[in-house]
Amino acid sequence: MKVLIAIDSFKGSISSLEGSKAIALGIKEVYPAAEIVTLPLADGGEGTVEALVRATGGRLVKKEVTGPLQEKIQAAYGILGDQKTAVIEVAEACGLPLVPLEKRNPFYTTTYGVGELILDAMDHGCREFVIGLGGSATNDAGVGMLQALGYRFLDNMQETVGLGAKELSRIVTIDVSQVTPLLKQCYFRVACDVNNPLYGPDGASHIFGPQKGATPEMVEELDLWVKQLAEITLKELNVDIQSIAGAGAAGGLGAAFSGFLGAHLESGINLILDMVQMEKHLEGADFVITGEGKIDGQTSRGKAPLGAAKLAQNHQIPVIALAGSVTDETNALHSLGMTSIFSIISSPLSLEKAMDPKVTFNQLQMTVNQIFRLIQVLKG
Amino acid sequence: MKVLIAIDSFKGSISSLEGSKAIALGIKEVYPAAEIVTLPLADGGEGTVEALVRATGGRLVKKEVTGPLQEKIQAAYGILGDQKTAVIEVAEACGLPLVPLEKRNPFYTTTYGVGELILDAMDHGCREFVIGLGGSATNDAGVGMLQALGYRFLDNMQETVGLGAKELSRIVTIDVSQVTPLLKQCYFRVACDVNNPLYGPDGASHIFGPQKGATPEMVEELDLWVKQLAEITLKELNVDIQSIAGAGAAGGLGAAFSGFLGAHLESGINLILDMVQMEKHLEGADFVITGEGKIDGQTSRGKAPLGAAKLAQNHQIPVIALAGSVTDETNALHSLGMTSIFSIISSPLSLEKAMDPKVTFNQLQMTVNQIFRLIQVLKG
Repeated sequence: MKVLIAIDSFKGSISSLEGSKAIALGIKEVYPAAEIVTLPLADGGEGTVEALVRATGGRLVKKEVTGPLQEKIQAAYGILGDQKTAVIEVAEACGLPLVPLEKRNPFYTTTYGVGELILDAMDHGCREFVIGLGGSATNDAGVGMLQALGYRFLDNMQETVGLGAKELSRIVTIDVSQVTPLLKQCYFRVACDVNNPLYGPDGASHIFGPQKGATPEMVEELDLWVKQLAEITLKELNVDIQSIAGAGAAGGLGAAFSGFLGAHLESGINLILDMVQMEKHLEGADFVITGEGKIDGQTSRGKAPLGAAKLAQNHQIPVIALAGSVTDETNALHSLGMTSIFSIISSPLSLEKAMDPKVTFNQLQMTVNQIFRLIQVLKG
Repeated sequence: MKVLIAIDSFKGSISSLEGSKAIALGIKEVYPAAEIVTLPLADGGEGTVEALVRATGGRLVKKEVTGPLQEKIQAAYGILGDQKTAVIEVAEACGLPLVPLEKRNPFYTTTYGVGELILDAMDHGCREFVIGLGGSATNDAGVGMLQALGYRFLDNMQETVGLGAKELSRIVTIDVSQVTPLLKQCYFRVACDVNNPLYGPDGASHIFGPQKGATPEMVEELDLWVKQLAEITLKELNVDIQSIAGAGAAGGLGAAFSGFLGAHLESGINLILDMVQMEKHLEGADFVITGEGKIDGQTSRGKAPLGAAKLAQNHQIPVIALAGSVTDETNALHSLGMTSIFSIISSPLSLEKAMDPKVTFNQLQMTVNQIFRLIQVLKG
């Protein structure tokens, strides 16, 4: 009996790793000799650094960087077990949670700290990068990050413009002469699950600006500035950053990564599954157990479990999905690889109680135990 | 694929029959051609009449009888599909729910109506009886019932005593000359899951008197009167009604059934399983699905599912148990035949919401569907 445990965190309750422990206990009660492989999952958003660091035996690095409001903040990123790949969640350096509600204003927030994290990882010898986009408080099209890496965005006086989206309005030319030379040796893979272009009705400013504090009038201005930047970039560098699917992710960071740093924008979960070598570990597995806090019929949720399930389905391996909450619109998920979906809730109880880490742990263990007891009588 | 569905009701939510329908739907979604046999279960208590009537294609009979407070009430009992077996829950004629809290006083409550139901069933041609004890408001040792059947309990003036336990104190002799002759042709099987003797510290009055409204002083008097009756019965009829295990059930009705009517006192669930021919239906079954509202580690609960599981275990058939609420002390239940126990709850919710019949129905169907999807990949 070989079981591959590949769960996302049960957000607000327990981590992927803790949940995996509970699941392993539930299996071992029935199959004490089972071979259990644990691959912590994430979807490219929050938890990506932890999952990849855990999965590869890597480490966390802390670094003081420029926060979204240009204050100094402590951020962390991961260096994977191979010692040459850094994993960075941009939200660590420019995330919405770093900006108090009353200070949210995408005119002024910057991605500069993301560039500083990249530089620090380069100093640590990293040349490969896994970037988790998402959750940014910014709309600067990644200009802040690029500035940190040596790109110079100049105004009509040949002066370097400042930080924040509002400064984009002053840019007239781009100077790449002082870009960190090592950047040429670097390879970026970016987890990005939106397809928005950089500007326009579906662009970064219109779609994501409001949740970052932009009024309708600000959205129009932001969209215009970002569009101007795209036009300057096309003219100066011969790079079209507008039409890349995902360019509008994270306030335009997608455009900066793709257009300036040559990054691949990829589905978050597929990137993660590749990084943790899910495919290799699937070999010989009898079951895959996946799951996260909530599984419903929306593909917008449960991305990581669904990605794991799809991959397992390609290998004809049954997938048991577990969640604290399962809605009844799960038919689509079945056809995408989830054999069966079980809730771990064992009695009527409040959301608060259900999310108690001890309760989640016990119920995961108990539910898996029951499932494997059934498997045992059928499979022997 | 043959599946035997044998669930108790999910009390307060849906009946055994409705729940079985939901389960059948969940199976059919995966195995459209499955042979599904539904045996509504009960444990000898509430729901016994309905379960047996349903299982055998019988019918309900309504009858006005004397209630526990000697008022006229409408009671119902069942006549099974064989047209000769009556099933009676004594609580229908003398149950605690028939007596408002402020009127609960076991000095005066009577089982007379139980005898009237038996007589009515005899009038309908019944000679076999299945009796569900439990839930009575009485402590009259079944004297009321016996009086209805023609037994005469006489005082020292050779006068018939009245109804209620207090009248037991006046009995000095028993006259059996006017007992309904047909009673000799009748055979009684009594569902009884307590082992209490008739009187003494573990007897009917001490153990069950208080919940029927007896104060400590009343308990002592009740116990004495019941003891006197046992002594008179032994002397007059040469029958020892004290030492029968279960004599103290239902305020001494166990003693009356066993000692006067020659009844067998049996485990409720075993009686029911026998009546619904569970053993016969188990033949060729791939799975048994059992369940009820709550399954926990206490054998005091989940009697019916546990009985079904034990029987299935004897035939090496895997048992899937389902409940709205499953506690985590289920190890004992596994070794007694429940292969796996699943809660049907699919997300954190209140007890009230969980008990909504529609919710229970949907969640039963959904949970069973998930389980059989797993079975399908394992079994084909």
